Amino acid sequence: MANNIIPLTELISQFERLPGIGKKTAQRLAYSILEQPPEYAERFADALLNARRKIHFCKVCQSLTDLEICSICDDQTRDRRIICVVAEPRDVMAFERTREYNGLYHVLHGVISPLDGIGPDRLRIKELMARLGSGEIEELIMATNPTVEGEATASYISRLSKPMGIKVTRLAYGIPVGAELEYADEFTLARALEGRNEI
Amino acid sequence: MANNIIPLTELISQFERLPGIGKKTAQRLAYSILEQPPEYAERFADALLNARRKIHFCKVCQSLTDLEICSICDDQTRDRRIICVVAEPRDVMAFERTREYNGLYHVLHGVISPLDGIGPDRLRIKELMARLGSGEIEELIMATNPTVEGEATASYISRLSKPMGIKVTRLAYGIPVGAELEYADEFTLARALEGRNEI
Repeated sequence: MANNIIPLTELISQFERLPGIGKKTAQRLAYSILEQPPEYAERFADALLNARRKIHFCKVCQSLTDLEICSICDDQTRDRRIICVVAEPRDVMAFERTREYNGLYHVLHGVISPLDGIGPDRLRIKELMARLGSGEIEELIMATNPTVEGEATASYISRLSKPMGIKVTRLAYGIPVGAELEYADEFTLARALEGRNEI
Repeated sequence: MANNIIPLTELISQFERLPGIGKKTAQRLAYSILEQPPEYAERFADALLNARRKIHFCKVCQSLTDLEICSICDDQTRDRRIICVVAEPRDVMAFERTREYNGLYHVLHGVISPLDGIGPDRLRIKELMARLGSGEIEELIMATNPTVEGEATASYISRLSKPMGIKVTRLAYGIPVGAELEYADEFTLARALEGRNEI
């Protein structure tokens, strides 16, 4: 069999572990690496190692950064009274693409999901509460996905924050119910920001 | 902007260079690397470097191998009188999956395509001719893609090989197994009629 070339089989299986990449696509990608000059594989390998080693969570907002405090938290021109609370780091990038939002972010790293054994203590909620304690924050925009778990997480955080005198809002249903925030286009996201309602 | 995390931007751009991977997919894949344990990125990087460094072309058939001579060319149980001529190394894997073919292979690494400036000298045709010179080969199965370039390449090699007393055959044209006749194009159907066999 041609497929007992061990380094090739290994490369295919690494591609196959990526989300949404099936066997056939993994094979095609692996072959394409072999068809390119060796420098490409080297740069790709470097990029993988660099990204994984240098990128960690921002001490403040828990989003991804290669600095101690991310460039958004560190940007003094942004509105420091509003925090947009999202589930995943990639959701931050989705909001940044709208160019409509100028506040800060907080990344929860998941949503409350009892069925998967994920309780509030598994999320970065206490880090969010610590930020609210500074007294500087006036509004939290809950921007978790419009799913049951996302809603439950939003209302859980809302219940904790309101007693601290903080206005808590939710993204408007401009976003299609059941969809993934990551794939929403910038116009829909911008409208959802505009029409946000108090919970 | 969140996307000025340089190691992340670099990783996304490496994924984007892969065939069939767009900007959104590249982002999703890059984030998925960051969500996995660091060992995954390390194993992926190793797999890339290993594959690219260890895999080269078989001295005989020009297919991919991590040995000097690939396991197919080296397999003494295979029929050494037949060579199946294909355009790309991945075509070898496609034939091997059929488990119906027990001869040898020769990989051309492309097809003759004057529009792209690819003449016969850019392909591994002289390596094929050298193999025919041994006198052991009785049949060449031309298995290039059924496109204008694939056909031209097949007939070019056929013209060179026939004077050496070698039988040159071409893969049968017809309707793919399991396909709906209704959706077959007229050229395929015409060729399927032409090449009809008695049941």
